[in-house]
Amino acid sequence: MVKTEEKTLESELIYDGKILKLFRDTAELPDGRSAIREVVRKADGVCIAAVDAEGRIAFVSQFRYPYGEDVLELPAGKIDGDEDPDHAALRELKEETGVECGKLISLGCGMSSPGFCDESLWLYIAADLRKGEAVPDEGEFLNLSWISLEKAEEMALTGEIKDLKSRMLILAAAAYLRKEAEQ
Amino acid sequence: MVKTEEKTLESELIYDGKILKLFRDTAELPDGRSAIREVVRKADGVCIAAVDAEGRIAFVSQFRYPYGEDVLELPAGKIDGDEDPDHAALRELKEETGVECGKLISLGCGMSSPGFCDESLWLYIAADLRKGEAVPDEGEFLNLSWISLEKAEEMALTGEIKDLKSRMLILAAAAYLRKEAEQ
Repeated sequence: MVKTEEKTLESELIYDGKILKLFRDTAELPDGRSAIREVVRKADGVCIAAVDAEGRIAFVSQFRYPYGEDVLELPAGKIDGDEDPDHAALRELKEETGVECGKLISLGCGMSSPGFCDESLWLYIAADLRKGEAVPDEGEFLNLSWISLEKAEEMALTGEIKDLKSRMLILAAAAYLRKEAEQ
Repeated sequence: MVKTEEKTLESELIYDGKILKLFRDTAELPDGRSAIREVVRKADGVCIAAVDAEGRIAFVSQFRYPYGEDVLELPAGKIDGDEDPDHAALRELKEETGVECGKLISLGCGMSSPGFCDESLWLYIAADLRKGEAVPDEGEFLNLSWISLEKAEEMALTGEIKDLKSRMLILAAAAYLRKEAEQ
């Protein structure tokens, strides 16, 4: 086994912003040399596959500024401070889609960009849905749509859905629900 | 349909680094108000599910500084300048695992963190493998392992693999290869 651990020698805060902090660290590599590590530190997030009684998944489409285009995604958002991830999932789902759910199934936690960012994303299936009115955050402009699980799975596989967390969660949710139906 | 488009009013380069640039933009929202948009702009990347004749996938484990731990991932890396994504996939696979492949199948392109970053990741299956000696980049310390596709799929579903791009690509590759085997 190759030794891999890196040790922080210095850490410089470059930018302390609204949604992220940027650090420029110097790290000692396993061979004793040093290297620059640029790290974005930000709040963790949640992403939810909400499946209704007709087997359709809730999607939100919103303008994603870094790409300059509308992106079709599963409902997702940031965890507030020391908020419990389950609570954040219920809150974000309600805010973005108006949906409340009777059943929240955790599919664990994932890393979105481990090369440069410390964000962890908590993944959920929401079922037993009650639909209501969306209450988006100020400055948040979303369009809601419902797509059958079968079609969504196809779109995740072909890449018609581009957002990787959504693609991942759709495939995992479909596998989970298939397994559950077989039991 | 709710209007979603945001227009750039101002763009300020906060940091121009080794692997990323950070911008602090002011954008006009659909309702005419303005908002700050913090955006990380960086090179696009590739990620490869390399499947050998025994049906095992190549994994690399490396220290991921933002998390301070070793992370098990599929081979991945940055596209160099105007390099073709297919070329980058072949190059990164060779560098990180020593593997060359006779067959490279594109599974399209995905967005890793559309909320704050413009990175696109090109996803591939590599087959018809010839194994050789890895030639990692300077300062890159990796451990290679091979895990059966079946086990890897289970680890992607349960979250034992944490890296979301790897989880996504394993599930997509498994579905693709199952479909191919059925034909």
